[in-house]
Amino acid sequence: MYFASDNTSGMPERIIDAIARANAGYAPGYGTDPLMAEVRAQIRTFFEAPEAEVFLVTTGSAANALALASYCPPWGAVYCHALAHIEVDECGAPEFYTGGAKLTHVAGENGKMAPDALRDTLARAGRGVVHNVQPGILSLTNLTECGTRYTPDEIAAVSAIAKAHGLPVHLDGARFANALAAEGCSPAEMSWRASVDVLSLGGTKNGLMGVEAVVMFDPARAWEFQLRRKRGGHLWSKHRYLSAQMAAWLQDGLWLELATQANAMAAMLEAGLAGRAELLFPRGGNMLFARWPRATHQQMQQAGAQYFLWPDTETLDGPDDAPVSARMVCSWNTTDAQVEQFLGLMAG
Amino acid sequence: MYFASDNTSGMPERIIDAIARANAGYAPGYGTDPLMAEVRAQIRTFFEAPEAEVFLVTTGSAANALALASYCPPWGAVYCHALAHIEVDECGAPEFYTGGAKLTHVAGENGKMAPDALRDTLARAGRGVVHNVQPGILSLTNLTECGTRYTPDEIAAVSAIAKAHGLPVHLDGARFANALAAEGCSPAEMSWRASVDVLSLGGTKNGLMGVEAVVMFDPARAWEFQLRRKRGGHLWSKHRYLSAQMAAWLQDGLWLELATQANAMAAMLEAGLAGRAELLFPRGGNMLFARWPRATHQQMQQAGAQYFLWPDTETLDGPDDAPVSARMVCSWNTTDAQVEQFLGLMAG
Amino acid sequence: MYFASDNTSGMPERIIDAIARANAGYAPGYGTDPLMAEVRAQIRTFFEAPEAEVFLVTTGSAANALALASYCPPWGAVYCHALAHIEVDECGAPEFYTGGAKLTHVAGENGKMAPDALRDTLARAGRGVVHNVQPGILSLTNLTECGTRYTPDEIAAVSAIAKAHGLPVHLDGARFANALAAEGCSPAEMSWRASVDVLSLGGTKNGLMGVEAVVMFDPARAWEFQLRRKRGGHLWSKHRYLSAQMAAWLQDGLWLELATQANAMAAMLEAGLAGRAELLFPRGGNMLFARWPRATHQQMQQAGAQYFLWPDTETLDGPDDAPVSARMVCSWNTTDAQVEQFLGLMAG
Amino acid sequence: MYFASDNTSGMPERIIDAIARANAGYAPGYGTDPLMAEVRAQIRTFFEAPEAEVFLVTTGSAANALALASYCPPWGAVYCHALAHIEVDECGAPEFYTGGAKLTHVAGENGKMAPDALRDTLARAGRGVVHNVQPGILSLTNLTECGTRYTPDEIAAVSAIAKAHGLPVHLDGARFANALAAEGCSPAEMSWRASVDVLSLGGTKNGLMGVEAVVMFDPARAWEFQLRRKRGGHLWSKHRYLSAQMAAWLQDGLWLELATQANAMAAMLEAGLAGRAELLFPRGGNMLFARWPRATHQQMQQAGAQYFLWPDTETLDGPDDAPVSARMVCSWNTTDAQVEQFLGLMAG
Repeated sequence: MYFASDNTSGMPERIIDAIARANAGYAPGYGTDPLMAEVRAQIRTFFEAPEAEVFLVTTGSAANALALASYCPPWGAVYCHALAHIEVDECGAPEFYTGGAKLTHVAGENGKMAPDALRDTLARAGRGVVHNVQPGILSLTNLTECGTRYTPDEIAAVSAIAKAHGLPVHLDGARFANALAAEGCSPAEMSWRASVDVLSLGGTKNGLMGVEAVVMFDPARAWEFQLRRKRGGHLWSKHRYLSAQMAAWLQDGLWLELATQANAMAAMLEAGLAGRAELLFPRGGNMLFARWPRATHQQMQQAGAQYFLWPDTETLDGPDDAPVSARMVCSWNTTDAQVEQFLGLMAG
Repeated sequence: MYFASDNTSGMPERIIDAIARANAGYAPGYGTDPLMAEVRAQIRTFFEAPEAEVFLVTTGSAANALALASYCPPWGAVYCHALAHIEVDECGAPEFYTGGAKLTHVAGENGKMAPDALRDTLARAGRGVVHNVQPGILSLTNLTECGTRYTPDEIAAVSAIAKAHGLPVHLDGARFANALAAEGCSPAEMSWRASVDVLSLGGTKNGLMGVEAVVMFDPARAWEFQLRRKRGGHLWSKHRYLSAQMAAWLQDGLWLELATQANAMAAMLEAGLAGRAELLFPRGGNMLFARWPRATHQQMQQAGAQYFLWPDTETLDGPDDAPVSARMVCSWNTTDAQVEQFLGLMAG
Repeated sequence: MYFASDNTSGMPERIIDAIARANAGYAPGYGTDPLMAEVRAQIRTFFEAPEAEVFLVTTGSAANALALASYCPPWGAVYCHALAHIEVDECGAPEFYTGGAKLTHVAGENGKMAPDALRDTLARAGRGVVHNVQPGILSLTNLTECGTRYTPDEIAAVSAIAKAHGLPVHLDGARFANALAAEGCSPAEMSWRASVDVLSLGGTKNGLMGVEAVVMFDPARAWEFQLRRKRGGHLWSKHRYLSAQMAAWLQDGLWLELATQANAMAAMLEAGLAGRAELLFPRGGNMLFARWPRATHQQMQQAGAQYFLWPDTETLDGPDDAPVSARMVCSWNTTDAQVEQFLGLMAG
Repeated sequence: MYFASDNTSGMPERIIDAIARANAGYAPGYGTDPLMAEVRAQIRTFFEAPEAEVFLVTTGSAANALALASYCPPWGAVYCHALAHIEVDECGAPEFYTGGAKLTHVAGENGKMAPDALRDTLARAGRGVVHNVQPGILSLTNLTECGTRYTPDEIAAVSAIAKAHGLPVHLDGARFANALAAEGCSPAEMSWRASVDVLSLGGTKNGLMGVEAVVMFDPARAWEFQLRRKRGGHLWSKHRYLSAQMAAWLQDGLWLELATQANAMAAMLEAGLAGRAELLFPRGGNMLFARWPRATHQQMQQAGAQYFLWPDTETLDGPDDAPVSARMVCSWNTTDAQVEQFLGLMAG
């Protein structure tokens, strides 16, 4: 499953070790463990946000849905791209957690929301009209589902439109570390300085077992979030194991180191594919999309290449002359050799 | 936190090792990993239930709420004891997941539901009356929140009443292993042979990091369960880590071995307390409740004793002459020395 | 159906006339009709509450559930009597509208909540403990389901306890007019002066076709209420027909006149039953509960007497020697002759 | 408000009379009134559907949302046109009642779903993929929100695609009578013979005070529907008033007579506008959309013309040179004189 997804890879040694260390002895549960205090301090420092509240959950869907529900009422519209993970890949988790909010698509190329599209959508949103769902929250994703990247300025530009309408801003950062590593900016620049109120900071796709941090730069809803987390069954009793992973991941820049390696491997793959396949979107980090003939696809699959078609509803059953779109994702532990092997399969 | 809860303890070596082993290489996600097939086979074998479906989640609240929601409609009544975990300690997770079902108390001593009380409650339940919520599901707990234990015959007796009304039966088995080890019966006898349709089989309180299996003896709702799990944000991408733990826990009887040790320590504690404190409920496994003077409590706390008061809303603030009720829980790794030390504090 | 319920009776002439008058011509919809402005003004005047917001719906369940949902979060506890309509007779409407709040019983005789019981319940409520649902709202009913009545002082006493815990107070006033007429106090005294924040003011059981006013003395949640009403499908397009009825009902004291007649008939019935049947609760208005032998019941039913047994799950199928409890409700149009006829059946 | 909406008009004499007649005496409540039996029989006869179940509610949003919730699970997709009332004008009622289903747009001109678009959408729907919401139900509207009309064959064509994927079909018939009168087919042809499983049959826009029938051609979900209706606060205690209206409306073809008149007035208006304004959609019944200069609009409004702009988020605030789109709706009581007066305003 080398290039199928960054969640098919495992954990680096430092994370495993952190789990083993945390296993010693007894610890208080439910987020009151000492390691969680450490995580909170790390996040506050790295994000230059001394007031931020931080909570851990174990899946990106939980992080996103709980974050959205804490800021958007049941009758709210969640503005997102049509390709957003919250819209496509969470089986309605946002609707479930919010109590029935409506995900409203905002157009834009390459998986990124176009400011004008958001402006138009909000202008027609019917605020104050009781028949319409009311503007609720803006949700962006970085890296996007197309593997592209918003710059901090781009996030700020879209967020400013939401803010002008009084909306909070959520950032789905399942691949925030990859975006950050690629962009080379500070965590603050890519979050609260760009008007993000709540961030799903993903660790799972970048080396953790299943840990995501929800960072609330505005802590006013922190208690509500905690109740929602518990009620959603997402408050771990043996919470120390989540804290331990997150603490080790943040320690000494490990998270960015892992992301940098994944990004580099995607760059290598991109270079190797150049001229041999049509690349679909500008690469923003560790994901790559390319189109090639169905026959090539079939041959590569038979030879053991591991990647998903995209969109995920596409299958091998299409007409022979229809090209397919392949999604390739590199992980923190993808190696040069794996990339070379893949390119070799491509060459046939 | 020696006696505070069985979830303050860590994982035994064999579980940690299993995680480390599972860490190697790439694995397909979302429950399609090979280890999950192994877990399914183990459960089917141990429970003598070749058709059973098995799903893993990471908290008991998730296991219970998802199980209940898969069998009880939003307008259903969930019949449970007033002290049940689903009623008291899950911040309304069952209401959230079911879409608003009503938890209806059925009385009984020592945390166990009395058959007559259930019979009476169901007789007055208003089935077919549109104004009333409709009978939905029976939910039992074994071990109970009082640390007592249902025998298989007792489960069967209560379940039979539910079945006579056409209701499915859920068993919250957060401490199922402890109950099983204490009872010495087979898993099947304490579950589907006693008419249990869906079991929350808890691993977390008995040595796992955070893994619970939902065992559906009637697999008709399995697909619905999976959608609810995903939608609840409880489907792990790196699912292999859950499977690995559960597989190792079930392997070579480890789960019963751990539970047996916890039970034995509680028995030792019980013997030591006999004659020195009023024991509140017949001990069923690894939990013990005792009442002693508030002064004793204060002195023990100062000396470092670690246990919770019960109910959990009781505090140190009461009148001095009011005795307190202490809840003591032993873990798989509780030692003779810890029990002796605790009894020593008691002796003062 | 003379004594079955006050909702088996029709509308007085003045209400029918008001509907016919409102039928003329065209009118703007969805609550923006001029008659609604009149209703709002009437309520504000009668309740001496110039800031109050008023909204109309067509059922008591909708009024209660929408009112509760506007003040109580999904993880909140709704404190109510075990016999409350919201608990027993609305098929879980409060749970549905709140998104899964938990109705928590507070004991008390004769369908009235005992202040001490509320105090104790709140003391053990686990506020701030993430595992427990959080105190949400107090919901009282006047007249109660037992036909008894809270005095304004009694409401104030219970409400004060809720207020001391920061809770809002809801009053289910399906028979508020009957309570008011019996008590002889002002609307303000029985509502906001006794710390009620939101009132379900019932018209349906007292002469309207199906109109209930939700009166929000604290208008901060008014917009949220309107969105919830629309979302619940309870915002009428031809709203003028609701406004017209409510305006006519409030006009010239009609509502109290109708309630007074119903109360008087219940008093007459009570006097007639005295010494011939065991009366169960102190009569507060237009409802009466009495116990008599099953044989008497069967004979009366055969002779055409129309009343319900209570609780509503009781049936004719019980053992012959078990007495039954009859619930008799008088309406605005109950007549002396009907009462006499009923007493005649009783006499056999 | 002559042309603002068909819900700004009142009730014809025969409906008022029916209400007055129903007012006499006592009647059992909650849908058990004798008039409801009559309504059921009428619907079954007119729709040639002897097994159909019929339930009354008072708003179209309630009818639609309850119907959808009875057939579509919380994780289901509701396929509808982007302009559908359930998507645009019900403040998320479908999401609320279903527990968070996702409304998925299917494209098509003139407010009508294109079969190919539905086919494509369903092909990409991810059935069986746990990450995606699952195909739930098809919801059509006739007349559409654009005032256009599906023929029975067109409904059948789209429904057949849904059926091929195992989906139930809902028809929002807020203006079903108008569609039926215009089409001249039988009720069965425009509903179950075209594979419609559940119909929202609207009376409110066609002469009733606020009554909609939900007709379930497949009665398997009838009891669930009733519980959902009660739980939604939509079960009237004095139900006879709803039955009486619906019975009178169906009696002697009144419903079609009223619809025919509304349609005729729209035809007259259409003829008058021809050549003077750009008509936007083919007229299917009693609604008409036309575009004219903003200056014309302003002048007509000042002269007292009453219609809404469309979409309803458009306002007078746009640039002067941007034309506006006017929506004009005729009612059962629209007169020739009113049409002529309106056309006169147009002429300026």
